[in-house]
Amino acid sequence: MNYPNGKRSINSSSSGNHGLQRSFSNRGMSLEDDINQTNDYYLAQNICVIHKKPTPVQIVKVDYPKRSAAVIKEGYFKQASTTDYNGVYRGRYIDFEAKETRNKSSFPLNNFHEHQIKHMKAVAEHDGITFVIIRFRAHNQTFFLPAVKLFRSWDSQYSDGGRKSIPYKQFVAEGIEIPSRYPALLDYATVIEQLFF
Amino acid sequence: MNYPNGKRSINSSSSGNHGLQRSFSNRGMSLEDDINQTNDYYLAQNICVIHKKPTPVQIVKVDYPKRSAAVIKEGYFKQASTTDYNGVYRGRYIDFEAKETRNKSSFPLNNFHEHQIKHMKAVAEHDGITFVIIRFRAHNQTFFLPAVKLFRSWDSQYSDGGRKSIPYKQFVAEGIEIPSRYPALLDYATVIEQLFF
Repeated sequence: MNYPNGKRSINSSSSGNHGLQRSFSNRGMSLEDDINQTNDYYLAQNICVIHKKPTPVQIVKVDYPKRSAAVIKEGYFKQASTTDYNGVYRGRYIDFEAKETRNKSSFPLNNFHEHQIKHMKAVAEHDGITFVIIRFRAHNQTFFLPAVKLFRSWDSQYSDGGRKSIPYKQFVAEGIEIPSRYPALLDYATVIEQLFF
Repeated sequence: MNYPNGKRSINSSSSGNHGLQRSFSNRGMSLEDDINQTNDYYLAQNICVIHKKPTPVQIVKVDYPKRSAAVIKEGYFKQASTTDYNGVYRGRYIDFEAKETRNKSSFPLNNFHEHQIKHMKAVAEHDGITFVIIRFRAHNQTFFLPAVKLFRSWDSQYSDGGRKSIPYKQFVAEGIEIPSRYPALLDYATVIEQLFF
């Protein structure tokens, strides 16, 4: 097997050479790692330009030592007002959030914040392509769910008897499982192409 | 005069009521403040969804005090790998950087980093709308320059006798002055509409 990227080959020996495609998501890499590596590949292959936004930090105190870099001495994590990933695919605006759960039967809606939903609704209104990537660790499956389908579940949680989670079955029925192909560990751009172009 | 936003009225008394439109950029607000306030207005008015990305920080040490928020105790500023602003306007991907200079006759190219130019080139290749916003403080003018025009100057600086700056005259000739209208202090969306739709 040919692993141009040294990092991947380190863990590859234990997984054998069967079930190769699926095994990439089995190696203890986080969902974020998988997406970042996919984005690096997309950028290098000129497929699209998607970046993760930096973690928002409230900086309170900074030291400026002589002859060396400024040091942040006091800072706090701020809640993000948008989603984590955005960029461009064939001219269109792309915007998404990614979450993983260890639950087997459903994805709890409290993984999202109200302002993230609000942001995705605004993006959808402006004809941006917005979705969520949800990984069910227990099933070793990662789904692409268009945001409009998330909004339905989100909004109905506040109604009488509304569910506070999205059933796994609903992802199977309404989502699209994202294929994993090395080196696009989570090849969501093929789903974008399929659904929106 | 009617100032629906309380913040603006604080400084308004000293400027009188003549030259109102231009005076907004005179009140010591930074370019970033003007853009952020414009973006807030755009979002509230449902014109487009553009956000400033958080400052990238390398977090080295975090304390987790009991019963209070995590505190970053050591962190460093990282160089951004992209531009500062992006979002969606009428479905299209928007991406830009904003800089100001006190120079009168030219804008020094070393205000940009190589990777920012590289990023904007990638965005342009993928049919995103990318540009820079350059403020000449001395002239009290702020220009919209499509990134393709910046690339020309950027690339030619490395050739024999290539300039390391873009003349002010070139902004007047090839750029578009961004109108300032309260509450869109820097109404760049009208320029996007004019140039790209």
